[in-house]
Amino acid sequence: MITRMSSLFLRTLRDDPADAEVPSHKLLVRAGYVRRVAPGGYSWLPLGLRVLRRIEQIVREEMDAMGGQEIQFPALLPREPYEATNRWTEYGESLFRLKDRRGADYLLGPTHEELFTLTVKGEYNSYRDFPVVLYQVQTKYRDEARPRAGILRGREFLMKDSYSFDLSDEGLAESYQRHRDTYIRIFDRLGLSYVIVSAMSGAMGGSASEEFLADAPTGEDTFVRSTESDYAANVEAVVTPAPPARPVEDQPAAQVHHTPDTPTIETLVNFLNAAGLDRTFTAADTLKNVLVKVRAPGSDKAELLAVAVPGDREVDAKRLEAAVYPAEVALLEEADFTANPFLVKGYIGPKALQDNGVRYLVDPRVVTGTAWVTGADKVDHHVVDLVCGRDFTPDGTIDVADVREGDPSPDGHGTLVAARGIEIGHIFQLGRKFADAFGLDALGVDGKPIRITMGSYGIGVSRLVAAIAEQSHDEHGLVWPRAVAPADVHLVIAGKDESIREGAERLAGQLDAAGLSVMLDDRTATPGVKFADAELIGVPTIVVVGRGLAKGVVEVKDRASGERVEVAVDEAVAHLTGLVRG
Amino acid sequence: MITRMSSLFLRTLRDDPADAEVPSHKLLVRAGYVRRVAPGGYSWLPLGLRVLRRIEQIVREEMDAMGGQEIQFPALLPREPYEATNRWTEYGESLFRLKDRRGADYLLGPTHEELFTLTVKGEYNSYRDFPVVLYQVQTKYRDEARPRAGILRGREFLMKDSYSFDLSDEGLAESYQRHRDTYIRIFDRLGLSYVIVSAMSGAMGGSASEEFLADAPTGEDTFVRSTESDYAANVEAVVTPAPPARPVEDQPAAQVHHTPDTPTIETLVNFLNAAGLDRTFTAADTLKNVLVKVRAPGSDKAELLAVAVPGDREVDAKRLEAAVYPAEVALLEEADFTANPFLVKGYIGPKALQDNGVRYLVDPRVVTGTAWVTGADKVDHHVVDLVCGRDFTPDGTIDVADVREGDPSPDGHGTLVAARGIEIGHIFQLGRKFADAFGLDALGVDGKPIRITMGSYGIGVSRLVAAIAEQSHDEHGLVWPRAVAPADVHLVIAGKDESIREGAERLAGQLDAAGLSVMLDDRTATPGVKFADAELIGVPTIVVVGRGLAKGVVEVKDRASGERVEVAVDEAVAHLTGLVRG
Repeated sequence: MITRMSSLFLRTLRDDPADAEVPSHKLLVRAGYVRRVAPGGYSWLPLGLRVLRRIEQIVREEMDAMGGQEIQFPALLPREPYEATNRWTEYGESLFRLKDRRGADYLLGPTHEELFTLTVKGEYNSYRDFPVVLYQVQTKYRDEARPRAGILRGREFLMKDSYSFDLSDEGLAESYQRHRDTYIRIFDRLGLSYVIVSAMSGAMGGSASEEFLADAPTGEDTFVRSTESDYAANVEAVVTPAPPARPVEDQPAAQVHHTPDTPTIETLVNFLNAAGLDRTFTAADTLKNVLVKVRAPGSDKAELLAVAVPGDREVDAKRLEAAVYPAEVALLEEADFTANPFLVKGYIGPKALQDNGVRYLVDPRVVTGTAWVTGADKVDHHVVDLVCGRDFTPDGTIDVADVREGDPSPDGHGTLVAARGIEIGHIFQLGRKFADAFGLDALGVDGKPIRITMGSYGIGVSRLVAAIAEQSHDEHGLVWPRAVAPADVHLVIAGKDESIREGAERLAGQLDAAGLSVMLDDRTATPGVKFADAELIGVPTIVVVGRGLAKGVVEVKDRASGERVEVAVDEAVAHLTGLVRG
Repeated sequence: MITRMSSLFLRTLRDDPADAEVPSHKLLVRAGYVRRVAPGGYSWLPLGLRVLRRIEQIVREEMDAMGGQEIQFPALLPREPYEATNRWTEYGESLFRLKDRRGADYLLGPTHEELFTLTVKGEYNSYRDFPVVLYQVQTKYRDEARPRAGILRGREFLMKDSYSFDLSDEGLAESYQRHRDTYIRIFDRLGLSYVIVSAMSGAMGGSASEEFLADAPTGEDTFVRSTESDYAANVEAVVTPAPPARPVEDQPAAQVHHTPDTPTIETLVNFLNAAGLDRTFTAADTLKNVLVKVRAPGSDKAELLAVAVPGDREVDAKRLEAAVYPAEVALLEEADFTANPFLVKGYIGPKALQDNGVRYLVDPRVVTGTAWVTGADKVDHHVVDLVCGRDFTPDGTIDVADVREGDPSPDGHGTLVAARGIEIGHIFQLGRKFADAFGLDALGVDGKPIRITMGSYGIGVSRLVAAIAEQSHDEHGLVWPRAVAPADVHLVIAGKDESIREGAERLAGQLDAAGLSVMLDDRTATPGVKFADAELIGVPTIVVVGRGLAKGVVEVKDRASGERVEVAVDEAVAHLTGLVRG
């Protein structure tokens, strides 16, 4: 295929778009791949659509190869199935809802578990039918609070979502592993650098779950990795190792101290260390009791919840949200303190909480036998040596303290360091949640029903265009991996001589005949403009047909390395075919 | 590619779905191509998706071949551009509207003229950039009042829409003609039988317009064609030829007659013929004045409009709607007669209408010099010999009388007969309506702006699946044309012997290696079940590997004709490749 730039619907831009912050967004707009239509809504211009389609094709090939069967659902979906799983409500504001002319409720599908479950239930009913993997490549909708970074986080985006249906947990584990392997093949073919992290489930509910994160300093997802092992996890998924419990008997008794002028952990610790007690305190010896309100989905009433973390840590809002999901978290207002006078602001301790029936959950480090400095439920007073398991008994643990670089890796090897990435894939063992909601069973050999167990697996196809661009660009523009480039060769006609034009046209024709796709810059622009555009557009191999042609040579430039070689025009087709076919 | 039916996500159904009325709907559901998800919303199961994709690919190839450049817009679009063209309002209830979390208005795109216009304006600005043709293959949304016939009229459907941008009317005519030629190639490749009819513009506004209608007795679109020429037109687009005007001087004077007991045209004509006047009257000599209310879009006020048609014709509601579009038509209520006492029900004549300022439009047959029997604005009275151009002067003509079989063809050749079809394509000279709305200009050679003129062209891609099925089926099931069939060959293993299974597997492997796609029925079902499913699914060539294999032959059956031939198994690949490659 030859794409003539003289008629290609493309205008490159010299300046970065005003609303762009990340490189992929700037470059995809400047190079004419996408255009903004609405907040989080982009149109794909010819070059962008080509890259998108090439990625889509790789995803499809690998999904077919692993035995997935492609189907396609509408994006406009009726409310009922999502009501049955409560996701009509759970999705909150991120669901686009609408009514049809008769007033019936619809939504724009953010993900399709309900429909796939119902469809399998409609067609299949015997153990012989399973396992089955179905997938679609389809437009999805989420009303993001902050659409950002161009197509990295849009409100309308292309996604591959697949679903596995198995008769047993072992079957699910196998389907999950096959998807994991398939995703590795896909992202490897796309030339991406990525990590696989343990993940929380988000709105999905279920058990095992991993995310594929493309390395990118501009990524929205923070994760941690071990300095010494393969361990990597979303911050929400980091499990803090609990220390061993200690005996409570030989510990000193709890003592209440008058601690005036200690509004912060730091002032409190300084006060105690100056008070002439028998040891030195650090912030890690104090226990901070943080009050929040938690509202279960569909409920009108918010309940108080107390969360205790060591004083040298903060409660991480994202980890807290993930921990209580699907309930929602809110901060306390003045009225809440008025309504609950036992809450002595700044001096809240476990006693008043538990005496007044407030659920009290503690950090995993707060094990039996650990002694803490904490509030004494009285203004200007703290209690020292309050021992867990002796002086108070938590209602359970909650792992929501912030995770820091230098924390021990949960797998016991090395310490954690922080990194950022772009979520490009998510694999997830849903289990029987959706099968339960819709009664999806298969009749077993013995004629008894077997409840199906499901997995759900997603790849952000349109987001991949941006993720690749984030990893593959330089100061001059985009640098596409061969597998997804909008053309194999970018052929620049550098010169006005008829002989140069003819030579370039002939070469383009030969490359086309050899099965290569050629972007031919046959515009009347200056060579400088053409070279700059070629760099910006990012086809991996740039061929310049110019004055050298008189000597029988063309220049072949590698976009990524910048290396240039002169190639005899007679050998150009063989040379370029070799480069492209690898 | 080999598709094994033992694991294919497919369950054929013995019975027609309860809600299905047309053959394509029944068969596409029974054969497992589509499933209903919501009113007018269908999922595509594996076989259906294959047919859809093959059609899409043919459309894309031909659009690329004619120089179209593919891009893609979101389906979720902001209100503003549609407000600028008034289509936010004009679309009425058939537009899906919604709000995002911030309360901003959005719509689901029913068609994308606005976005294409804005995009071209954003990228192009010189006469050198034009002409350009852009297209997309994209999911569209229309909140149909009556979604029907499965995927024939859905509320979410796949459409190819393209738009041409030209500097001149001649350029537009050329772009239009190129689209027309391209559509002919597409529909010919799909093996469809269709006609091209002159069409009204519907919600689009503009000038030349034609529809491609696939012949189908179940089609929603009525059209008329000439018995003796190629003339074909939507009923809305039929132009009634006007007879020549006649002199008014030599006509008898108008006379008011007392005509008691003549509530209908028939009784009136009988009364006049019995009244001893000098000639015989027919219904065609009478003039029926029909009152309606017409409301311009965005206006609160409806205006009275009087429409006069010969008494042997009815006002065709669809033709009337098309004629006054974008205004809306409503019938008069009792209150309207009370408010306008000059309207003497049953006896309305031109005089009272024109005396009271009611706009009065007449059928094209009502030319100067024609004499009519009509109401005398007085109960039980009619006027005879009321001459157009002498006794009354219409405000204009309106072509809304019903069109009938036997009417003369507007091109002067033959008479009209009625037929039904499915709209599969629509080509349309939009003109400058959208360019005007958004100020889309190109700078000319002389530096002066040239207003761009546009064409808009659509193909209902998902509807084509149903249209082809409507034309290509029999009592046993679907009969796909080769170009769109879900497989090239349907290979049935008919027998339980291991040798038969092995022979079939070997043949399938050889066909796959030869580049044919094979549906292999490797299920444990009986031959009878397999044959019935093969007929239902409709792959054009069915190969049966059964007992004949012992003699070295397989049976090759043509699905369309039912013809069977025995072919030596050694020659089967060559034979089948010959059939498929044509």
